Amino acid sequence: MPTAIDPKVPSFVPVPAASHFPLYNLPYGIFSPAPTASLRAGVRIGDHVLDLSVIEDCGLLAAAGLPPGTFDQPWLNRFMELPAEQRRLVRLLIHGLLREDEPTLRDDATLRARSLLPASSVTMHMPVMIRDYTDFYSSREHATNVGIMFRGKENALMPNWLHLPVGYHGRASSVVVSGTDIVRPCGQTIAPDAATPSFGPSRLLDIELEMGFLVAGSNELGTPVSVDEAWDRIFGMVVVNDWSARDIQKWEYQPLGPFNAKNFATSISPWIVTIDALMPFACEAPAQDPEPLPYLREQDRRTFDITLSIDLQAEDDEPLTICRSNFKHLYWTMAQQLAHHTCTGCNLGTGDLLASGTISGPDKGSYGSLLEITWRGTEPVTLPGGGIRKFLADGDRVTMSGVCEKDGLHLGFGEVTGRILPAHKDLQ
Amino acid sequence: MPTAIDPKVPSFVPVPAASHFPLYNLPYGIFSPAPTASLRAGVRIGDHVLDLSVIEDCGLLAAAGLPPGTFDQPWLNRFMELPAEQRRLVRLLIHGLLREDEPTLRDDATLRARSLLPASSVTMHMPVMIRDYTDFYSSREHATNVGIMFRGKENALMPNWLHLPVGYHGRASSVVVSGTDIVRPCGQTIAPDAATPSFGPSRLLDIELEMGFLVAGSNELGTPVSVDEAWDRIFGMVVVNDWSARDIQKWEYQPLGPFNAKNFATSISPWIVTIDALMPFACEAPAQDPEPLPYLREQDRRTFDITLSIDLQAEDDEPLTICRSNFKHLYWTMAQQLAHHTCTGCNLGTGDLLASGTISGPDKGSYGSLLEITWRGTEPVTLPGGGIRKFLADGDRVTMSGVCEKDGLHLGFGEVTGRILPAHKDLQ
Repeated sequence: MPTAIDPKVPSFVPVPAASHFPLYNLPYGIFSPAPTASLRAGVRIGDHVLDLSVIEDCGLLAAAGLPPGTFDQPWLNRFMELPAEQRRLVRLLIHGLLREDEPTLRDDATLRARSLLPASSVTMHMPVMIRDYTDFYSSREHATNVGIMFRGKENALMPNWLHLPVGYHGRASSVVVSGTDIVRPCGQTIAPDAATPSFGPSRLLDIELEMGFLVAGSNELGTPVSVDEAWDRIFGMVVVNDWSARDIQKWEYQPLGPFNAKNFATSISPWIVTIDALMPFACEAPAQDPEPLPYLREQDRRTFDITLSIDLQAEDDEPLTICRSNFKHLYWTMAQQLAHHTCTGCNLGTGDLLASGTISGPDKGSYGSLLEITWRGTEPVTLPGGGIRKFLADGDRVTMSGVCEKDGLHLGFGEVTGRILPAHKDLQ
Repeated sequence: MPTAIDPKVPSFVPVPAASHFPLYNLPYGIFSPAPTASLRAGVRIGDHVLDLSVIEDCGLLAAAGLPPGTFDQPWLNRFMELPAEQRRLVRLLIHGLLREDEPTLRDDATLRARSLLPASSVTMHMPVMIRDYTDFYSSREHATNVGIMFRGKENALMPNWLHLPVGYHGRASSVVVSGTDIVRPCGQTIAPDAATPSFGPSRLLDIELEMGFLVAGSNELGTPVSVDEAWDRIFGMVVVNDWSARDIQKWEYQPLGPFNAKNFATSISPWIVTIDALMPFACEAPAQDPEPLPYLREQDRRTFDITLSIDLQAEDDEPLTICRSNFKHLYWTMAQQLAHHTCTGCNLGTGDLLASGTISGPDKGSYGSLLEITWRGTEPVTLPGGGIRKFLADGDRVTMSGVCEKDGLHLGFGEVTGRILPAHKDLQ
């Protein structure tokens, strides 16, 4: 793991004190500087974006020996599939370019104008081509809450839950970048007293506060990745909102799991924070009892201390923070998820998204879905403007965020936000 | 639908009487003519493959106005995303080139040598880049059989089953082309009398006889495809073997559905038979009672009469046919599957694979999985050489095939075959 970067080194680019993006963070994203311009890679610093395609084109990353045009791409996949050491060198070179004491970019006004763009002037896009998306169910608190609601306290956790990271395949094509409006889905639901289902817009539209990691590199089909090798396959992390239609889910999910209830959209934050940047915030994951089977036993049971929040904002109202949680609560780690996923020989490829499942903490106030926050609608949320919410109304905006703080070092993920549009009119 | 092609027109290319690939079929695939050669598109005729990249390069498809290099690609996606009318014109042009009475290719020995290759000399590859793979559960007989085994006769079908085509997201990266060996997966399973699970090679490795269709074109996220528009989005069909580890499935599948039980491999036949070629074999799908909700009601409730079979062959033994079924048995049609999938606004893209789920017929002998054929292992299969099978043994080969026959016209899908290799040695 990298030790070469000193978190305290300042940049010549101004970084506001509360910014998620100090020089130490340097998260990767894909943006277009103008509506007609091509998509390219950048890193975020303070309120600016550094255009890596320009920096690469000028030869300033030559020492990394990148294949030509690595950052002049509509996705980060080509960069992400490079060896970890080469990617770390790129991070070091970018850091070096942006340091306060390094004149190359600092003193070249022309190059600065071409490569350092105000973040407010660019459009962010999906950072990766996600071939396959997997969603886990790794929060013990969330699984227990949902279990209590649907099966009672005694049988809350399924018998398999403490033995393996339960997960399922999600829909990759509908993973969208923060800012994308979400059309309320239509689907089949059944009223509690009805004999037959009906069709129409979902009435129980919910959110799920999750984080996800993006996979670097590929394992061949038939070749598992061990739990201790797994860290080398994790490029970085994003905040994920797994939009969920609870009424559709309830009717459809037996016996093959959620399908239409979740295939209409999953939103991710645009900047991928690398594992290297997160290392100062590493902490031990919760102890596991019973001890997992050997293929899930980690030498170094590592997770990250990332404070998460959810804001809910009705149209023409102020936002209300409805959840404060933390990534470190998760029972199953990213390494365990990856090892379990591949233990059958399943091949994971660069750009695959593996999400955590809803991250609920131990207390009320730390629950990561409206289902839990309003306890199935029995304890509605009152918004600042007086609106009442059991689930989402059209026009509502949901914004999730993640920040890390330790020893004066502060960084974050920015946000993943989305607004609910009315259902498609043909189907209402 | 095309009427311009007369199924009785012969080709100058010899077509054996029993061949799946008469001039009328012209299925598309991706092949390499030699180990070091690039991948390109071809159509199959008799025991030959016509190299479409050569034919296109010679200008013989110019009338179709294809983007340059449409067939000089490692996948068919670029061709599949063209408008249906343009694709039909290509089919007509290829048919015209291969007719007995058309001299252009017939009398050009040099071009024939370059473009018409013995099928036995080429290597077949994945025909499409599958971004997302969805697997349905559309056989009433299969769902009933499995339901009886696990929940008893009275509660065999889940309450939702007759109202919607149940489906789930599968793993796209591990869809492989026919001929690929399948490594027996390892995973967590629990013995009937055990308190805790154990880890090791699956002992209940099974097959599922399915067919799948490949999607043409894209719908925008948030915009459903109606059941009557759905046919324009179906490019063609393949035979699918959805390999399944029943012991892993049983332990993991609650509450989110199958995951590791199926993510290690799904095999498809290499030649995509177009819907146009299948039209002579169109027939009415089974009547539905109760009548489905309006968004699933079809003006033309069309399916296809395709006879399916499964052969099981132990190492050093002869193959045994263990199933004869038919695609027409399926309760939910491809158009209903596609409309249901997108009714939430979910975006399907070119190359997506939507598979049917196990296709079981009404009688013993027409069941599409070993789970049903051996009725959970209580009625094992005896192979010609004396071997006994409840589920698959290492070295076993499974081959599935599909053929259509009507009014003297005969065509087929070739086969999807795969052999079981022992589990990965690190994990045994």
